[in-house]
Amino acid sequence: MRFYDCTTAPSPRRVRVLMAEKGIEIDTIQIDLFKGEQFSEAFKKVSPLSEVPVLVLDDGTTITQVNAISRYLDEIFPENPLHGRTLVERARVDSANSWVQMNGFAAGAEAFRNFTPGFKNRAMPGPHNYSQIPELAERGLLRIDHFFADLDAHFESNEYLVDDYFSVADISALVCVDFAKWVKKRIPEDHKNLLRWYDQVNQRPSAKA
Amino acid sequence: MRFYDCTTAPSPRRVRVLMAEKGIEIDTIQIDLFKGEQFSEAFKKVSPLSEVPVLVLDDGTTITQVNAISRYLDEIFPENPLHGRTLVERARVDSANSWVQMNGFAAGAEAFRNFTPGFKNRAMPGPHNYSQIPELAERGLLRIDHFFADLDAHFESNEYLVDDYFSVADISALVCVDFAKWVKKRIPEDHKNLLRWYDQVNQRPSAKA
Repeated sequence: MRFYDCTTAPSPRRVRVLMAEKGIEIDTIQIDLFKGEQFSEAFKKVSPLSEVPVLVLDDGTTITQVNAISRYLDEIFPENPLHGRTLVERARVDSANSWVQMNGFAAGAEAFRNFTPGFKNRAMPGPHNYSQIPELAERGLLRIDHFFADLDAHFESNEYLVDDYFSVADISALVCVDFAKWVKKRIPEDHKNLLRWYDQVNQRPSAKA
Repeated sequence: MRFYDCTTAPSPRRVRVLMAEKGIEIDTIQIDLFKGEQFSEAFKKVSPLSEVPVLVLDDGTTITQVNAISRYLDEIFPENPLHGRTLVERARVDSANSWVQMNGFAAGAEAFRNFTPGFKNRAMPGPHNYSQIPELAERGLLRIDHFFADLDAHFESNEYLVDDYFSVADISALVCVDFAKWVKKRIPEDHKNLLRWYDQVNQRPSAKA
């Protein structure tokens, strides 16, 4: 297998943290998104979407999208499952992880991509160009505030996103909290529950991935 | 189990089509989103997110989010699997389904919710209110054009979203094409491959769900 990564970008980091938690090592190729390497003809042959992460299997099968890659790796390396240990837990992790994706990650991306000058016509990832919408950057910032407040309320009575089980939903939320720093959003001091969770998750060795 | 549905809304329809394909029948409770029933105190006790679909298990466990519910039902009723028959196929379905979600569904929601007068402060689903952004409605329409064109290119050499295997990714895309009609977007006549696929999928009895 080969893993296409970009060490500075949040999406592939979600897969790297999962690999670190599970002790998986895969040949990795860096695609520097900030230099535009995702648009090279060579990389477009790997993935016409011009996005990382990408996992290419030994038979040439290409798997795109963080959650698809993450779940596949979790299934072929079943030790220390991070997508749930039972069918019900899998569903609950899936639900929590989708919620983080849509309300945390998407909010961060809205905020970041719609105001950063270097992303002028690149307000969305992928092969199509979209203009920035300043109001959408503002909405992204507001959504991050709500995301932090909702997480804080959740962590008042739960150790992790799903009860006391550390899962990919926590990995996604950790990467998301760090991504929010790109738009100068940090966990507010009065969000004691969220700060407690963040310290706990951030101290895991995998957080350095 | 109990299934919280809204027959007029696209997201729960994705689960209904899956249930129809698999012959699953579950006690169903209608929540009329257009009458605002999702904000009732009774429904907020079921799901504080004020969103459908929701699946409540016999022990009271609540599963939210289309993909989590859909995958759970596919796993507990394993006949006629729609999320993939092998680990690799599961990953590829997951990837295609995420792509439809982010590029088709999200585009439709952007277009619909940001211009419909009745959604003035409800530009996003969920418990928080967000103002409409007219430019985002425009971007949503443009993204639907790209989504249709990308699907058309894909179906030139594939029967379904993943090779010749009918999966939940096709269900999501079918519902998405129908959702686009809400903002007066129909498959353009020159998108022959997409029209061929749509006719094929739309003729399945499950499409009436």
